[in-house]
Amino acid sequence: MVDDKLYFASDYQEGAHPAILRRLLENNLTKSPGYGTDRFSENARRLIRQACLAPEAEIHFLVGGTQANAVILDTMLKPYQGVIAADTGHVSVHEAGAIEHGGHKVLTILHQNGKISADAIRSCLEAYWQDGNHEHMVMPGGVYLSQPTEYGTLYSLSELEAISAVCRSYRIFLHVDGARLAYALACPENDVSLSDLARLCDVFYIGGTKCGALFGEAVVFPTPGTVPHFFTMVKQHGALLAKGHITGIQFETLFTDGLYRELGRTAIAAADRIRARLREQGYCLTYDTPTNQIFITLSPSQLNRLTEKAELAFFEKTDDSHTVMRIATSWATTDEDVEKLLALL
Amino acid sequence: MVDDKLYFASDYQEGAHPAILRRLLENNLTKSPGYGTDRFSENARRLIRQACLAPEAEIHFLVGGTQANAVILDTMLKPYQGVIAADTGHVSVHEAGAIEHGGHKVLTILHQNGKISADAIRSCLEAYWQDGNHEHMVMPGGVYLSQPTEYGTLYSLSELEAISAVCRSYRIFLHVDGARLAYALACPENDVSLSDLARLCDVFYIGGTKCGALFGEAVVFPTPGTVPHFFTMVKQHGALLAKGHITGIQFETLFTDGLYRELGRTAIAAADRIRARLREQGYCLTYDTPTNQIFITLSPSQLNRLTEKAELAFFEKTDDSHTVMRIATSWATTDEDVEKLLALL
Amino acid sequence: MVDDKLYFASDYQEGAHPAILRRLLENNLTKSPGYGTDRFSENARRLIRQACLAPEAEIHFLVGGTQANAVILDTMLKPYQGVIAADTGHVSVHEAGAIEHGGHKVLTILHQNGKISADAIRSCLEAYWQDGNHEHMVMPGGVYLSQPTEYGTLYSLSELEAISAVCRSYRIFLHVDGARLAYALACPENDVSLSDLARLCDVFYIGGTKCGALFGEAVVFPTPGTVPHFFTMVKQHGALLAKGHITGIQFETLFTDGLYRELGRTAIAAADRIRARLREQGYCLTYDTPTNQIFITLSPSQLNRLTEKAELAFFEKTDDSHTVMRIATSWATTDEDVEKLLALL
Amino acid sequence: MVDDKLYFASDYQEGAHPAILRRLLENNLTKSPGYGTDRFSENARRLIRQACLAPEAEIHFLVGGTQANAVILDTMLKPYQGVIAADTGHVSVHEAGAIEHGGHKVLTILHQNGKISADAIRSCLEAYWQDGNHEHMVMPGGVYLSQPTEYGTLYSLSELEAISAVCRSYRIFLHVDGARLAYALACPENDVSLSDLARLCDVFYIGGTKCGALFGEAVVFPTPGTVPHFFTMVKQHGALLAKGHITGIQFETLFTDGLYRELGRTAIAAADRIRARLREQGYCLTYDTPTNQIFITLSPSQLNRLTEKAELAFFEKTDDSHTVMRIATSWATTDEDVEKLLALL
Repeated sequence: MVDDKLYFASDYQEGAHPAILRRLLENNLTKSPGYGTDRFSENARRLIRQACLAPEAEIHFLVGGTQANAVILDTMLKPYQGVIAADTGHVSVHEAGAIEHGGHKVLTILHQNGKISADAIRSCLEAYWQDGNHEHMVMPGGVYLSQPTEYGTLYSLSELEAISAVCRSYRIFLHVDGARLAYALACPENDVSLSDLARLCDVFYIGGTKCGALFGEAVVFPTPGTVPHFFTMVKQHGALLAKGHITGIQFETLFTDGLYRELGRTAIAAADRIRARLREQGYCLTYDTPTNQIFITLSPSQLNRLTEKAELAFFEKTDDSHTVMRIATSWATTDEDVEKLLALL
Repeated sequence: MVDDKLYFASDYQEGAHPAILRRLLENNLTKSPGYGTDRFSENARRLIRQACLAPEAEIHFLVGGTQANAVILDTMLKPYQGVIAADTGHVSVHEAGAIEHGGHKVLTILHQNGKISADAIRSCLEAYWQDGNHEHMVMPGGVYLSQPTEYGTLYSLSELEAISAVCRSYRIFLHVDGARLAYALACPENDVSLSDLARLCDVFYIGGTKCGALFGEAVVFPTPGTVPHFFTMVKQHGALLAKGHITGIQFETLFTDGLYRELGRTAIAAADRIRARLREQGYCLTYDTPTNQIFITLSPSQLNRLTEKAELAFFEKTDDSHTVMRIATSWATTDEDVEKLLALL
Repeated sequence: MVDDKLYFASDYQEGAHPAILRRLLENNLTKSPGYGTDRFSENARRLIRQACLAPEAEIHFLVGGTQANAVILDTMLKPYQGVIAADTGHVSVHEAGAIEHGGHKVLTILHQNGKISADAIRSCLEAYWQDGNHEHMVMPGGVYLSQPTEYGTLYSLSELEAISAVCRSYRIFLHVDGARLAYALACPENDVSLSDLARLCDVFYIGGTKCGALFGEAVVFPTPGTVPHFFTMVKQHGALLAKGHITGIQFETLFTDGLYRELGRTAIAAADRIRARLREQGYCLTYDTPTNQIFITLSPSQLNRLTEKAELAFFEKTDDSHTVMRIATSWATTDEDVEKLLALL
Repeated sequence: MVDDKLYFASDYQEGAHPAILRRLLENNLTKSPGYGTDRFSENARRLIRQACLAPEAEIHFLVGGTQANAVILDTMLKPYQGVIAADTGHVSVHEAGAIEHGGHKVLTILHQNGKISADAIRSCLEAYWQDGNHEHMVMPGGVYLSQPTEYGTLYSLSELEAISAVCRSYRIFLHVDGARLAYALACPENDVSLSDLARLCDVFYIGGTKCGALFGEAVVFPTPGTVPHFFTMVKQHGALLAKGHITGIQFETLFTDGLYRELGRTAIAAADRIRARLREQGYCLTYDTPTNQIFITLSPSQLNRLTEKAELAFFEKTDDSHTVMRIATSWATTDEDVEKLLALL
């Protein structure tokens, strides 16, 4: 990339947090058994269980987000079931049909700021069970949420508790996609903790790829044995890493000395400064998001001026020929770059 | 692991070749676009094309071997086709049904030292096409080989040319799994070059995970466009790495200054010394293998003595209560460890 | 069923048109080769090609509608593609996830009276191709329509021509589900002929199950060879009938002496008389449908009175506690039953 | 077909037993609810439960044999499991990959006269469970047998009891494919009754297509609820017949007044006479089969002479340029045709 440009397009442009590379270097020639049976992975699991206050939790390390969602939903859903998700959910739109490739339908609900409500989920479930032909239809078997959502918004604890209650009353599972979880946890507005997720979900994953790791997502089943032979299913999906200790070392580092939370704070602090300036300058913030993703609706002239100097992510065109762009900060965002961007705004 | 033990169980026990970690470190904060569109990946592709003398080759970087085989076979086979493979092939036995999960049958042929012959493949194809009921059967759509094989043996250039000729005469594809390719290329007995693979195969992959990388396999299609929308299919299989530049940097390093070949030589040199000593000491070598995997048939007493001090891989039990164990060397095998093992034998 | 009740719940309550049973009886002990290679099936294909003015058409006989849609879409769609359909389409709602079981997403468009427009389809296609992330999304590979629709409505020739034109301009296929096609063809309002379907579609099926046969749907590919090895794919889907001549005899009969059109007229004539009476009596017709399915919105009292004497099909509840019920006529509807129903209204 | 030829190629060349057509005719205009909820299907289930001495059995009527096997195995196997079958089993060879299409591997065992033994099954299970890498392999989840087998041979009661015992000790299911079950039940050598199947299997199907029906197979689960939501899974596989009463009427007839057994006897009596004559005339019987399929190894001259006047089924070529042909009798085989064939031999 041309080096005088500002990069705020995404939160996976760099390598890993320096502490992770340091640990990989230190242990590079240590011999470990394969497939996640190594002591680094074991220790990472121990640390994550502590952070989640879930001493029994079963934890597996996968490589990426789409892979984690596909393996989780394909193994949690029965063959006659589909998953309820927001029409804007990652599994609904941006996984190239990975869920359908696994044989399952994504049952979409219209989103509001990227979120779906307990009421909307209940209505969807009632509609299915009250339909005289429901045996000819796909049964809703679980709910997919992301925290933060695709739109950078957050579910409040009360919203999540309501959704969890609906799922449990209908005996379907709740899965939370935490690809950017560090940026939710570090958010002042956020009141959902890791232990809340462990208490309210049947499965969720803690994102590494977008939160400081080279790659890797930690899949957490608060109740062990939720999916029989999950290890074999991971292998069958081509998702089993031979050198599992590489992921183990990364998550061990992320969950040592509060690094995961700390790197989240870096991104949120940067995002907050940018949001403040945008408001000052009268920019139109498309959604009210407290996390590391900021969406702004730009006029053609604003678009040209900004994108000339800064790399932002295209999100969508509006009807009045304005453009919604995304600014993403991350653990790697520097004060220097933030200053430059503020000057630009 | 207990540190006074000798580890010769597998070739994926360590991290990455130091040169790779160094490069990851140097470029850690460089900002790259995602999904393999970065300049490191581009350069790695250029270097691999050069090494394969295949200027047009289309190259994609995946994460692991089972994943690479599953994505390649699932996208190369038509829905009514299966793949011909040795009954001992990795896709036949050790991928937890990943190929069948993709909807395809593995049509097995009895192996000889882990290999299948052009004649056996031709017979299999003739049997299908001459069967009056073949429209009710699975059509052989391609051939899967591994070089080196699961048994550490090698296909000679003439054997590979004969197999390729059969495939082309029947218009089916040839895929070579190169999970351990570095250890074939570095082998004095080997006469199959990367350019031979590019000339004779429709697709093959160059192994990184077992050959010096943290992870990663380079899938090579000598003819570009062999699989339409392969990128989307990779995504659908959950095999697309967000931080593609991490794989790019690794393969760029492996194919700079002949590192890939050099680290192969380290493993072969170590294996040759061990083989020589085993022969001197009258051990029974199960197969005559020239690569980094050595199989020995041990009596119960030999087994106990060896495995007390050294970690080897269990391969199989024989009828006469002997045990076949595998000794694997790698790029990371040190002279010191080899000395200790020789002393032990 | 209690015999003093009136049955208007569906169009697949009886066996087959007497002419079909007669022919099955006449040929019962004739020996035929299996799997649709018999002379009855050959003759049925010839008659259907004539009726479609498609002398080259490739025709296969399947057993049921969901099966036909699943086999057609699974074989016409590439693995990275999904099918565009009305959110009320049979493949979207009432096939228990058969399309997703085949690995494909149903890309839904909001219906209008059960139909989707050429404009809506074009917008869906533009949205995909203009999205910067479309390589991460499911590509629309074809369009699914039903004629008549789930709501008993009809596509006009001009509507179908416009949709076909959009499909061809985007090089995607058009599939028309003709489960109730006889009732469209027999409809005075209908201006879409079998030859129009053969001219405008890439594939469609002519319904037998709901149109006078014991079972069976005739899948028509106007261009032969559209799907390579379709026979094997039918077998793989468990959809290949051993005694193919049974389906052959049925379609041979349906397309002899205009029986298919004639039995459609019986159903439409009955439906028209019922519609007329419903209007006279001030019933609320939910949709304006010209075919054999009539939807009426009933008050609780109307519902009770009618369903006490007549068996109708529940369709849905409205918000104001009214109920939408379906009255379906068929080739088997007798004047006597119509009289009784009219008396009841 | 040319009418002066003798047809002994298969047992699905005709329509249905006259008694079935008569009943279809009698009830042709009776109105029945769809999808197998009609009183004919209910009564057929009652009669089959009686015949199986399995008052609790859950019974579903499917259309064909490959379909029945695919739906049964796809719903009985877990995603990480495959099915053990003879390498000559119908699911292994002649279903065009239907089992793999469902995502499952067929784990083949070498057959003996088309059969596999309890010992071979146990060895296969032990090999899996004792393999240190079994978590990377496909777990055997059930056993598939056919009675009679593809080779017309029969499992004895003691063989079946031994196999059932192995399955139960390993907690895997046993499925018996009864496509030609009538011809086993009518066989003097046979000592396996329907109630034995109900006692020893987890699921089996009673063949209709090859045993006197137009089509249809009765899937029997001795323990109800074995597969949750089986109805929906049948629909998802495109295997649910709208006019379920058509299958119901057929099986009701087959299990009234011992028709199923009686039509089996017709076929066996004819086969026995042909076998006797073949032996007299010194023909080489390829396998010693007691059922309705006879395999003979013919010299080129014998082949020419016989196939000139009689239509037999090609089975396979032998190495010494002889040909194995199949003679199949059925419920529809007439004494007259048998006489003509005897004269020919």
